[in-house]
Amino acid sequence: MAERSIVTLEETLAALAEGKKYTTLRDILVTMNAADVAGVFDSMPETKLPLLFRLLPKELAAETFVEMEPEAQELLIQGFSDNELKEVVDELYVDDAVDIVEEMPANVVKRILKQADPEMRKMINEILKYPDDSAGSIMTTEYVSLRPDMTTEEAIKRIRRTGVDKETIYNCYVTENNRKLIGTITIRTLLLSEDDDVLEEIMEPNVISVSTLEDQEDVAEMFAKYDFVALPVVDQENRLVGIVTVDDAIDVMREEATEDFEKLAGMTPSDKPYLRTGVLETFRSRLPWLLILMLSATLTSMVLTGFETSLAACSALIAFIPMLTGTGGNSGTQASVAVIRGLSLGEVEFSDSLRVLWKEIRVAVLCGVTLAACNFVKLLVVDRMLLHNSGVTIPVAATICVTMIFTVFCAKTVGCLLPLLAERIHLDPAVMASPFISTVVDVVTLVLYFQVARAILGI
Amino acid sequence: MAERSIVTLEETLAALAEGKKYTTLRDILVTMNAADVAGVFDSMPETKLPLLFRLLPKELAAETFVEMEPEAQELLIQGFSDNELKEVVDELYVDDAVDIVEEMPANVVKRILKQADPEMRKMINEILKYPDDSAGSIMTTEYVSLRPDMTTEEAIKRIRRTGVDKETIYNCYVTENNRKLIGTITIRTLLLSEDDDVLEEIMEPNVISVSTLEDQEDVAEMFAKYDFVALPVVDQENRLVGIVTVDDAIDVMREEATEDFEKLAGMTPSDKPYLRTGVLETFRSRLPWLLILMLSATLTSMVLTGFETSLAACSALIAFIPMLTGTGGNSGTQASVAVIRGLSLGEVEFSDSLRVLWKEIRVAVLCGVTLAACNFVKLLVVDRMLLHNSGVTIPVAATICVTMIFTVFCAKTVGCLLPLLAERIHLDPAVMASPFISTVVDVVTLVLYFQVARAILGI
Repeated sequence: MAERSIVTLEETLAALAEGKKYTTLRDILVTMNAADVAGVFDSMPETKLPLLFRLLPKELAAETFVEMEPEAQELLIQGFSDNELKEVVDELYVDDAVDIVEEMPANVVKRILKQADPEMRKMINEILKYPDDSAGSIMTTEYVSLRPDMTTEEAIKRIRRTGVDKETIYNCYVTENNRKLIGTITIRTLLLSEDDDVLEEIMEPNVISVSTLEDQEDVAEMFAKYDFVALPVVDQENRLVGIVTVDDAIDVMREEATEDFEKLAGMTPSDKPYLRTGVLETFRSRLPWLLILMLSATLTSMVLTGFETSLAACSALIAFIPMLTGTGGNSGTQASVAVIRGLSLGEVEFSDSLRVLWKEIRVAVLCGVTLAACNFVKLLVVDRMLLHNSGVTIPVAATICVTMIFTVFCAKTVGCLLPLLAERIHLDPAVMASPFISTVVDVVTLVLYFQVARAILGI
Repeated sequence: MAERSIVTLEETLAALAEGKKYTTLRDILVTMNAADVAGVFDSMPETKLPLLFRLLPKELAAETFVEMEPEAQELLIQGFSDNELKEVVDELYVDDAVDIVEEMPANVVKRILKQADPEMRKMINEILKYPDDSAGSIMTTEYVSLRPDMTTEEAIKRIRRTGVDKETIYNCYVTENNRKLIGTITIRTLLLSEDDDVLEEIMEPNVISVSTLEDQEDVAEMFAKYDFVALPVVDQENRLVGIVTVDDAIDVMREEATEDFEKLAGMTPSDKPYLRTGVLETFRSRLPWLLILMLSATLTSMVLTGFETSLAACSALIAFIPMLTGTGGNSGTQASVAVIRGLSLGEVEFSDSLRVLWKEIRVAVLCGVTLAACNFVKLLVVDRMLLHNSGVTIPVAATICVTMIFTVFCAKTVGCLLPLLAERIHLDPAVMASPFISTVVDVVTLVLYFQVARAILGI
């Protein structure tokens, strides 16, 4: 619903910009959320951008700037005077400023840092030094810290005085000297307490925090588990250095899910949206797995070449190779994706391997037998009777269907075990397991097929 | 890190429970977050549960109850006296109560509703009547509503008086008579304003809200887009009926991502964790697609049977069928997964079809030519020279490599267009596109292979 209304609105706004009705345009833009304004701007011709941007009041301008695509941000910065740049930078939260700085070329970064006030510059540099994908790299250093001996009344006064610059005032952090984190307190608890309650007595002393180097994916998982809106980040000495807010955790969750999708499909993860990734970049992210899997298919060629004389003796078998390898691949993928997703949601661990295997074995037997039975009927009715494929005799159909049962069994076993093994040796299950499964299953299926054919058909 | 420390803690706590050191156990449990207590309880023997649960103070008990697995919840409720049940139900937020009620058998639901106070019962029944996966079904009806003519001071007083029962007090909603929603205000704005400011003048009048019937996936997307911590839900007449909080939006995001993974792997989505889904249930969720894809492979069999004589004339071609269909399938999956993910993140729309197609065509040419070139060298060096496969002549290698280029081209084209078409005709791209792609690509690859063989080898 939201999407649809924006599309028509975009057209109206484009017409207003075209007709230079800037006052009307401004009146509409100020009623909109920054994310929507950015959406409108991103669809406008680039040349109009600086003019449109200058229509916005200061705060909305900065919020909109944060939401825009890096290309548009760079374009705007290039056109800003030093004063205009300073106005935008002053309004930014430090974690947003870091995100922007990370996307910009060196000369733009220099200009941004030059315009930032000294404290902001120090904070930006602080966050930039943490490794990619760590808690430190996604945190903000603008939080409310309180002293344990403050009363509720004093705490609320302090929040009212200093809160305007903080990204969130909902969760406040109680620190001792040396910034040691000893408790947390929500604004809710503060508001629902008596004015003269002392923080030390009403704060939550059992703090759940993460270290600066914690993997951002684990940080996001903690938000999902504990339903937090912010999570404190501490250094080795338990000193509070920043907080991660839930909106950043949501971004991480979406990024990580997208990465898993990409890995499952045999692509090197990219952190850019699909349409903003260049052709060469997409090519580079896709080629390696295609190449590896193509080359590893040499194994299937070898198996098929080895059985060339058997195939010549019963050429009807050839027609069902794609069906068997395809069903094997699909069965294996079902098991592996279920386990990979379970691992990444923390529902399955390596220690569950036996339970997983036992479950998959039972599922495999049920699936294999049902598929084989349906296939047997289909082979005799469709292929033999309707399509007059005289090569499909009852022994040939039996060969195909017995192979089907073994194939599904092996595929599900391999499919569930490979991700668990990858996890065990600390490789990414999505990368290591999924693209290999169809290659492994192809080889296994073909070997099984010819062994079964030898046994049943005597070739 | 969190995970690791819980494992050892679990062992300690199990030992304490075993040794009946209940006072020590209680002292440790009260320092823990409810989600962690639930994790510990879920790993304890079932018979100990009622006793352990009674160790917890009232509020922590209710919070822990919410976080436990449905089986354990049911077991506990069966063991509760009416009084104990009432104590837990009284402490629940209404949306958590609804989640629990939805998982319980009818007789347990009856007992829960009987113990809930009349207002709670009314709210539970209200939410239960919204369709699954709608905004109404995940909202809570416990929110702070304020009047437009209140001053900041009056508003804060009201929040202090009534806030204890509300799921969040951070976002407050300004309503007129008849519950018409006319603005929102955060506790932050309230705290940072003057005591005598009137809400009407400081509230945000441009409210972003969703209707009760909005799809929960779209609701979750709005949280990602706007960085909200809560979102108001209104009925047809713009009357406020509830709010969705960010923790529930996160749960929806995770569920929906899991569903997409399952659909991509050809499974009917299940909302239960992997290890908690029974074998029969898993079998039923996996069989349909395996069956459909197996039966649709009849097409590939027909193509292969049709070209049986060509294959007999040049049997070396058979060995490379899995390599070609495999590379085709992988190329197609890369394109389809990229587009499907783009669609579900809102980065790609049907109107982008031409841009998507143009991009995929260029990527396909680059990938196809590179793969074909590598493959040509590999065929002559590895297969012909090292493996002594005398059937791999230069014309045969050329046939395989020319087919490779066409296959990758067709696979990427089909892979990117199928999801867009599915989206266009309002089918789920992940369900309709992904499992079909390898079947379509298999057939296309084989037909191409034999046409190219006919042209180059004259068979």
